[in-house]
Amino acid sequence: MWNLQRNIECFIGCESEFSEADIVLFGAPYDGTTSNRPGARFAGRAIRAESFGIETYSPYQDKDLTDLRVFDGGELELPFGAPEPALEMIYSYTKTIIGNNKLPFMIGGEHLVTLGAFRAVFEQYPDVCILHFDAHADLRDEYLGQKLSHASVLRRCWELTGDGRIWQFGIRSGDREEFRWAEGRVFLHKFDLEGLAAAVEKIGSRPVYFTIDLDVLDSAVFPATGTPEAGGISWGALLGGILTASGLNIVGCDVNELSPPYDSTGASTALACKTVREVLLAVSR
Amino acid sequence: MWNLQRNIECFIGCESEFSEADIVLFGAPYDGTTSNRPGARFAGRAIRAESFGIETYSPYQDKDLTDLRVFDGGELELPFGAPEPALEMIYSYTKTIIGNNKLPFMIGGEHLVTLGAFRAVFEQYPDVCILHFDAHADLRDEYLGQKLSHASVLRRCWELTGDGRIWQFGIRSGDREEFRWAEGRVFLHKFDLEGLAAAVEKIGSRPVYFTIDLDVLDSAVFPATGTPEAGGISWGALLGGILTASGLNIVGCDVNELSPPYDSTGASTALACKTVREVLLAVSR
Amino acid sequence: MWNLQRNIECFIGCESEFSEADIVLFGAPYDGTTSNRPGARFAGRAIRAESFGIETYSPYQDKDLTDLRVFDGGELELPFGAPEPALEMIYSYTKTIIGNNKLPFMIGGEHLVTLGAFRAVFEQYPDVCILHFDAHADLRDEYLGQKLSHASVLRRCWELTGDGRIWQFGIRSGDREEFRWAEGRVFLHKFDLEGLAAAVEKIGSRPVYFTIDLDVLDSAVFPATGTPEAGGISWGALLGGILTASGLNIVGCDVNELSPPYDSTGASTALACKTVREVLLAVSR
Amino acid sequence: MWNLQRNIECFIGCESEFSEADIVLFGAPYDGTTSNRPGARFAGRAIRAESFGIETYSPYQDKDLTDLRVFDGGELELPFGAPEPALEMIYSYTKTIIGNNKLPFMIGGEHLVTLGAFRAVFEQYPDVCILHFDAHADLRDEYLGQKLSHASVLRRCWELTGDGRIWQFGIRSGDREEFRWAEGRVFLHKFDLEGLAAAVEKIGSRPVYFTIDLDVLDSAVFPATGTPEAGGISWGALLGGILTASGLNIVGCDVNELSPPYDSTGASTALACKTVREVLLAVSR
Amino acid sequence: MWNLQRNIECFIGCESEFSEADIVLFGAPYDGTTSNRPGARFAGRAIRAESFGIETYSPYQDKDLTDLRVFDGGELELPFGAPEPALEMIYSYTKTIIGNNKLPFMIGGEHLVTLGAFRAVFEQYPDVCILHFDAHADLRDEYLGQKLSHASVLRRCWELTGDGRIWQFGIRSGDREEFRWAEGRVFLHKFDLEGLAAAVEKIGSRPVYFTIDLDVLDSAVFPATGTPEAGGISWGALLGGILTASGLNIVGCDVNELSPPYDSTGASTALACKTVREVLLAVSR
Amino acid sequence: MWNLQRNIECFIGCESEFSEADIVLFGAPYDGTTSNRPGARFAGRAIRAESFGIETYSPYQDKDLTDLRVFDGGELELPFGAPEPALEMIYSYTKTIIGNNKLPFMIGGEHLVTLGAFRAVFEQYPDVCILHFDAHADLRDEYLGQKLSHASVLRRCWELTGDGRIWQFGIRSGDREEFRWAEGRVFLHKFDLEGLAAAVEKIGSRPVYFTIDLDVLDSAVFPATGTPEAGGISWGALLGGILTASGLNIVGCDVNELSPPYDSTGASTALACKTVREVLLAVSR
Repeated sequence: MWNLQRNIECFIGCESEFSEADIVLFGAPYDGTTSNRPGARFAGRAIRAESFGIETYSPYQDKDLTDLRVFDGGELELPFGAPEPALEMIYSYTKTIIGNNKLPFMIGGEHLVTLGAFRAVFEQYPDVCILHFDAHADLRDEYLGQKLSHASVLRRCWELTGDGRIWQFGIRSGDREEFRWAEGRVFLHKFDLEGLAAAVEKIGSRPVYFTIDLDVLDSAVFPATGTPEAGGISWGALLGGILTASGLNIVGCDVNELSPPYDSTGASTALACKTVREVLLAVSR
Repeated sequence: MWNLQRNIECFIGCESEFSEADIVLFGAPYDGTTSNRPGARFAGRAIRAESFGIETYSPYQDKDLTDLRVFDGGELELPFGAPEPALEMIYSYTKTIIGNNKLPFMIGGEHLVTLGAFRAVFEQYPDVCILHFDAHADLRDEYLGQKLSHASVLRRCWELTGDGRIWQFGIRSGDREEFRWAEGRVFLHKFDLEGLAAAVEKIGSRPVYFTIDLDVLDSAVFPATGTPEAGGISWGALLGGILTASGLNIVGCDVNELSPPYDSTGASTALACKTVREVLLAVSR
Repeated sequence: MWNLQRNIECFIGCESEFSEADIVLFGAPYDGTTSNRPGARFAGRAIRAESFGIETYSPYQDKDLTDLRVFDGGELELPFGAPEPALEMIYSYTKTIIGNNKLPFMIGGEHLVTLGAFRAVFEQYPDVCILHFDAHADLRDEYLGQKLSHASVLRRCWELTGDGRIWQFGIRSGDREEFRWAEGRVFLHKFDLEGLAAAVEKIGSRPVYFTIDLDVLDSAVFPATGTPEAGGISWGALLGGILTASGLNIVGCDVNELSPPYDSTGASTALACKTVREVLLAVSR
Repeated sequence: MWNLQRNIECFIGCESEFSEADIVLFGAPYDGTTSNRPGARFAGRAIRAESFGIETYSPYQDKDLTDLRVFDGGELELPFGAPEPALEMIYSYTKTIIGNNKLPFMIGGEHLVTLGAFRAVFEQYPDVCILHFDAHADLRDEYLGQKLSHASVLRRCWELTGDGRIWQFGIRSGDREEFRWAEGRVFLHKFDLEGLAAAVEKIGSRPVYFTIDLDVLDSAVFPATGTPEAGGISWGALLGGILTASGLNIVGCDVNELSPPYDSTGASTALACKTVREVLLAVSR
Repeated sequence: MWNLQRNIECFIGCESEFSEADIVLFGAPYDGTTSNRPGARFAGRAIRAESFGIETYSPYQDKDLTDLRVFDGGELELPFGAPEPALEMIYSYTKTIIGNNKLPFMIGGEHLVTLGAFRAVFEQYPDVCILHFDAHADLRDEYLGQKLSHASVLRRCWELTGDGRIWQFGIRSGDREEFRWAEGRVFLHKFDLEGLAAAVEKIGSRPVYFTIDLDVLDSAVFPATGTPEAGGISWGALLGGILTASGLNIVGCDVNELSPPYDSTGASTALACKTVREVLLAVSR
Repeated sequence: MWNLQRNIECFIGCESEFSEADIVLFGAPYDGTTSNRPGARFAGRAIRAESFGIETYSPYQDKDLTDLRVFDGGELELPFGAPEPALEMIYSYTKTIIGNNKLPFMIGGEHLVTLGAFRAVFEQYPDVCILHFDAHADLRDEYLGQKLSHASVLRRCWELTGDGRIWQFGIRSGDREEFRWAEGRVFLHKFDLEGLAAAVEKIGSRPVYFTIDLDVLDSAVFPATGTPEAGGISWGALLGGILTASGLNIVGCDVNELSPPYDSTGASTALACKTVREVLLAVSR
């Protein structure tokens, strides 16, 4: 009568084995360069645990997670206080996923973790573009002397892709230099997702890495993040953006910057769960 | 000089005696079938205590609670872990209210409590319709084997009314079967209150039971609930819906699913108080 | 190598000396008449400490705090439980600022503190108008017998200015008498900022005292305040109002009613920081 | 079947009418001079609401509240920001209680409220002594220029009683001058309750006002107070002190300085409820 | 390089397979009869997740979890609002464990879950005794009309064992009748663990079910529970009790009543983890 | 009348200039290697801000901070995610302090920061001993591959001092290897401060670096830390230890591991403030 296997905890509806899966979900619990409020390391576990408060079915897309084949690999065991070794492990795990012809879906962690996954994706798809939703430009060259920082992660990605390959939306915070530097190098769209449909059309069938920093949302909608920023988009707008982006050839994605210790009402984690569900359904083929 | 009676605590402005009242406010502190985060049992007390942070006057309706005659009966003393006896007590109390020609106004508790009050209302008004605002369809036949569940409450009500008598608005969560089942049986409106004015017109002068699950609101607006759901309506939209519904012949109503333990900022309880005030003013004659 | 001066803590980018400054920022940590949830006394310190989570640059105005000259005088040391002496100290400090030809920028504290600063501003500019964003009318003649109350502060200001000099926006709470009393005396705009552009035009070049009670914001957007009120404006709308108001001849301003003890997610304080930045940039010349 | 009276909320087991009661429990929701963290105004309501989490029976004293006759008068409605009128109301209510030959039992509020009740008690019993449990000496002559302050309340009481009538226990915080001043004037016992039995013997049959500032407890045991202080006594020690004091001729008492907004776990309020029960049982005859 | 199995989450150091294990750890996430603050349903998951904050090694016992063979079966999926079916599932799972010659170690849930496990243990060992650490006697015959309640669980167990087989320690709350009823039926030790060594000697080699309600701890030490009670024992005393009890022939045990939603500091969950480790090491052979 | 200097924020009573000071207080806001719950980076600011809730006078030592000369240098600006550069800055600042014949008093930050300060102290005093209060041995050779970790900090210090120079007290957590390794190398005292007086005598007049990890305290007493551990010492015991240690020739000290984000009641920060005061008074000459 009883299933006597050790306790398995997966994101709701993501119970495929690795070999049979099309998508591989995993957590990258690193927040060592977070400059304001750390805690994103706990996001993956929290999202997995709270995913049982949502349904597998999306009335928005009329699709169900139970129709997909997703493997949940759990959390990587990353070192503390050492960003490069952590990125190396993320890179290696992502490479394994891609090498098995599966789509990597990473849950951060702080935004720096994107660099680890993107290095692997970029190696496989040298023409890959980046679609980036965020409150912050993340384009600094360094932060307090450090090149590897959540505030520099898109700058590091740009060093790989070069000009004209990164589309940013929702940006409403940065120093003056970041906004100046962006001109002509990345397509920085301020404040909201306006222009996304045009960008999707322009990107066309090129491979895309899709990275969502959840602080693109208004701080009222998603307070539990390292640096909450007023003036962001609503969850409905984010959902709209995800659906628009679903027309792209997405070859990797991540959702990051939930910091559960600041989620005293639980609403931010619940929102993150629902967002992960919608992105999973949107990127599945 | 001093009024030396025992301590009376009523919702602000609801200080009529039972005999003189038109509306009877009472709490149904039951949350025993809550599947996610319990705590709605504490809603009635919290709403009553915090009601002194709002005013009796509504600038939206230009009406004042001091012009109404509302009796606040306090909280029912319900058993724990035994849904049917709890529903029976709610039924009996509601029947007493209706039998005295007064309008029952219940504060939940989890949504299952609606079934107790509705049974009494249905007995008196066999042609009663239901107007239902919620994030969740609540149309499951059972939940983990239990027929009495907050996730099944509208299904149980439908067993009384039959097809075509239930109007649902704001629904954005459920399993695929619930959405399929609803077709042709209940008027399920997804995501928001669009179509409400037409529904009100269609319902006409028939008696209506009006049940508001506060999680119809966006999780940013109302996080302190058992299962917060992103993508909901704003409080302004809810107020609009209440005003639209005020044209109906409302013979009973409830406001439920505030879970104060998750209300660390106090904003959810304050919002619930204001909502109760607006519904009281809207359903008064 | 090391700067060995005692620890200086200023709002980000506000590091000018008094003598060279155009604007003087200071905190008025008083909340002794708060009728609901006290704690606004902690706002100034919290805003200063958390200001390092935002940037000095505003992409909304394309201006940077580092281009301004703002002196941060810290927190006044006000007595507890004695509103008149506290107001007297605020008055005196504001007078010193104005006497040195600088613009006073006060961080509350409860809204009553506005009276102290306004007395000094009014003395200098007898024709000064008031622009007031708030959820509450604050027009009571007294509150539980006390003339000095956060609920009476605009009434006390009106006793100085007389009729037709106060513009209120966003008002959605008060007793019936306040709304009646306002007619013909103050320009009370309910619910939102509609009509602000016309008001700005009408005020023209007259000196203006600009007072923002942050509870004008929706309780979802800004829960950490003494009396959160649902149905308020978004931060985007508030920002729009600030930009519109920037066309006025502002001679003094304040931002008040953040109550950090209720800010469990930190989002309210972060929002207040961003608001202070935008108002600083908007009132600078 | 149903008791259709308005909602009555009393401390558990305290449901006598005023006329038949021996003890009168009431709340004094004032915290206007609190210098650190306000919120004690909410203590009475919180204690009343949470009292249903404890039992009426004490296994420590083998007594039951249901054997006593206690009237719960609820919360006084005190003005904000005006200590003298608030004290006057507390005085007047206490005088009514004493005038009816009942024992006043006040729940604070900040410690200043003791002065209002003590004035009435002192008028009736000019030879009354004070037994005072507290972390703080509360013996300052004034605080930031104000004579009426929670930090001065015992000094104000001493102005009534004169030297040699006040016994303090548990004192572990104060400025140097308070400790110096106390010598020869009040019996100040530092750190714990050592010496209490001897004091009780010395006081003998004289009337005693018993005032418990709950911050006499260790900050681990009772964090939810305006100024938590490490190094305090355990609840067991406090209980021991209450039982020792029960041999005195207590003619009035209070329990104060619970600040529920800082009670995120609920343990402080639950402890306060249990303390109120034990003191009620200990002072009853 | 990568272990590509689905995400397994076990209590730290409890990674054996069922077949090879000596002890089976599992969670019983039921809190449907909790009369005060629900939330114990979340305890098992929280304890498992936070167990990585402690070590596998105990310096108190100089033993290490890695030397034991413990299988972690995860959480049972229990119905909501239906105590008897939930107890039936717990009974059945426990029976499976015992039938395989392993020791059942249950993490509650509210205390009622003990009844389910104990029924299975009692069936196997009809002479089993109970060792019970708790703040509450749990000896009521019924609670608000319900026989199955966390407040009646030891009474229900007594109906199986009869007189003289239950030893209770730490009891400091109950109604008067419970204390009276206990006389001659169960060995009720009030307030602390005094007398435990003698009890252990008296029990001798008989089989023992060991049930720890964590609210036996002082509310300062363990606030995150349904009904925190001041005056309890320290963790050191609890550890002492566990070590003393380790001399018994323990054939089943549970640790219950952690309610993580009230654990805002995290200390209660961390303490529960350490307690589970010490009990695991103490009952292992 | 007004002091128009920029806002200075010092720990209460620590307002000397650098040049005149005997002790230099500074914060090292680094928590990048924290393996469990980060947030110690916020400790220095929180302690400084909350220090105004305590007094400058200690009734335990009958000394007053106003009699000392302490300079508060504020917080160092340390990089994120890069432990070695952060340690280098701490080293350099400490060296400046020592070079000016002042005593360095550091507020962490995670415990790793001790290494930075100790390197400077060791350079000046090659025969320096370490007195270490902590729940954790911190003697691992590395943690997840990293040599610089809060879990390895005393091991790194030992690499400087060699055997027989480090005294540890209160240790109640570590892996088995740490306890084994310690034998013959460091004086590891388990669980409490027993043996401290003897250690003080043995150390004699040798220079001592005194490092207090506040998690030596019981998790009930001090929950707001990265890894709260039950079974620790009381604050009274810690105070006793500080007073005993005051007989030593202390040439540097630190107090670390307060993590304010987990301090929902504020009691942990208040306790840390009081501890800093007592250590300042104890090490002053």
